[in-house]
Amino acid sequence: MEPFTLHILGCGSAKPSNGHLPTCQVLDLRGKLFMIDCGEGAQMQWSRMGLGMTRLGHIFISHIHGDHCFGLPGLISTMGLLGRTADLHIHAPADLQPFVECVLKNFCTEMDYEVFFHVVDTKQFQLIFEDRSVEVWSLPLRHRTPCSGFLFKEKPLPPHIRPEMLEAYGIPVSQINNIKAGLGWVNEDGELIPSERLTRPAEPPRSYAYCSDTMYKPSLAELIKGVNLLFHEATFGEEYVKRAQQTGHSTARQAGMMAKAAGAKQLVIGHYSGRVKDEVAHLNEAKAEFENTELAKEGKVFTIHG
Amino acid sequence: MEPFTLHILGCGSAKPSNGHLPTCQVLDLRGKLFMIDCGEGAQMQWSRMGLGMTRLGHIFISHIHGDHCFGLPGLISTMGLLGRTADLHIHAPADLQPFVECVLKNFCTEMDYEVFFHVVDTKQFQLIFEDRSVEVWSLPLRHRTPCSGFLFKEKPLPPHIRPEMLEAYGIPVSQINNIKAGLGWVNEDGELIPSERLTRPAEPPRSYAYCSDTMYKPSLAELIKGVNLLFHEATFGEEYVKRAQQTGHSTARQAGMMAKAAGAKQLVIGHYSGRVKDEVAHLNEAKAEFENTELAKEGKVFTIHG
Repeated sequence: MEPFTLHILGCGSAKPSNGHLPTCQVLDLRGKLFMIDCGEGAQMQWSRMGLGMTRLGHIFISHIHGDHCFGLPGLISTMGLLGRTADLHIHAPADLQPFVECVLKNFCTEMDYEVFFHVVDTKQFQLIFEDRSVEVWSLPLRHRTPCSGFLFKEKPLPPHIRPEMLEAYGIPVSQINNIKAGLGWVNEDGELIPSERLTRPAEPPRSYAYCSDTMYKPSLAELIKGVNLLFHEATFGEEYVKRAQQTGHSTARQAGMMAKAAGAKQLVIGHYSGRVKDEVAHLNEAKAEFENTELAKEGKVFTIHG
Repeated sequence: MEPFTLHILGCGSAKPSNGHLPTCQVLDLRGKLFMIDCGEGAQMQWSRMGLGMTRLGHIFISHIHGDHCFGLPGLISTMGLLGRTADLHIHAPADLQPFVECVLKNFCTEMDYEVFFHVVDTKQFQLIFEDRSVEVWSLPLRHRTPCSGFLFKEKPLPPHIRPEMLEAYGIPVSQINNIKAGLGWVNEDGELIPSERLTRPAEPPRSYAYCSDTMYKPSLAELIKGVNLLFHEATFGEEYVKRAQQTGHSTARQAGMMAKAAGAKQLVIGHYSGRVKDEVAHLNEAKAEFENTELAKEGKVFTIHG
């Protein structure tokens, strides 16, 4: 099974009052790293967690609030100091661009790598990036400022070769890529052995949805239907449901409701306000709606199962 | 004795590789807080160390390298979120101004307090700030980019009243301020009792010098002559003395030499490169030149003695 893991670098909110770091996550998908949000201290936490910076090519920023992007200047600079040469791509709402450009202009003139800024339209559900392994889709959220979530959809893996069948048919190893690609094999008698007989299906592709910051938005469920792992913000407990509404945030209960409505396999909640004093109670509030819920915590790694 | 303490929030250098945080210090002088440099993570460390943000009015930034200023966006924003209304003053070289302005423009439009930027001329030794308790002088340093150190000179305290003398002369309490100010007291016989007889001298004023980042610069010693506490950067060990010269930094030995030449009472060293593997050896290198040396460390508090 190819790795697909979510690393929590920070899961607090704006005020550094409750022992949490501001938001930052890293997704490891088949060996490539994708960063989602980059709160202050991200580079130190990155270093503590032993994640290699060279495998990082793309950073996705949800919105312009400081607790989601003030780690960018340090991260970008440090990668320059470490001698990075590979391009770095930042995908974010348009209003973040002046800040990134200011940092590059004032601090990064001697770097050996380039930073490219890609504008994310926070009103559209659309494909914003893809490579061989993954598609990344923007998820329109509802916050106080333009804000986008991100849906990571693994691309289907090729089927697994059945070595015992290759041996039985006397098929040379050089044919493996053809067979994986579905071409089959023609034997000496001119008979076509279909690929399906020589392989077993790969694991179904997996998916991860990141929804923060946002108020409870029922229409989101359709866009993330059947997602394997959902991270949904749970800034407040249900006793602050009005405050959540006013500030463009969700409660733990609402995060659970979203996981249920979307038919998610697993839910992780975070982005805790300083008002969340009892995290176990916070977890239980979400669990009452959706049992398979866990709390985000700095240093925790979640495996995304198919 | 009025408090005069130095709080170390971070004492590493640019790469977050050796467990240290980037540079940030807070000076507590008679209850007012002054921040010196503001590396990434300063606000979290501030919060951990339990320093109250309302007592902070002035931030002094030595130079534009990220490990000395990337904590500013988060600190400024968080003080806004916490409802600060008092003005905040940033004293720094001119090239930092565009970054501060960019942060204010893009992230801080809804704050209830104002941030004022004061340009520090990094070529001049001059008074850049004073209030009732302190004078702050700029110290021209020699680094790869314009860089200023800072000399904090406590203003003289008024003398202490000798209560037994007031009682002996029958002097009313209402006269205490006059006597402290040196006016003396005329008794019923028209005799002048001079203030000196009614008071004992205050403790001598204390001073603190911050010299980072800089290569070894002998002429600095004259400007900080007799300083009570000197913080001098010691990025490298003496085995990297050439690299120190090339990169505009100092060795631990050079920091010790500066303390000796300046006739400092105490030396604290920091701004450790990742190449400093053995901090005790690093300390001993400085101590060979200047015995009363200590290592900076996150969370440490140094009292500045007269």
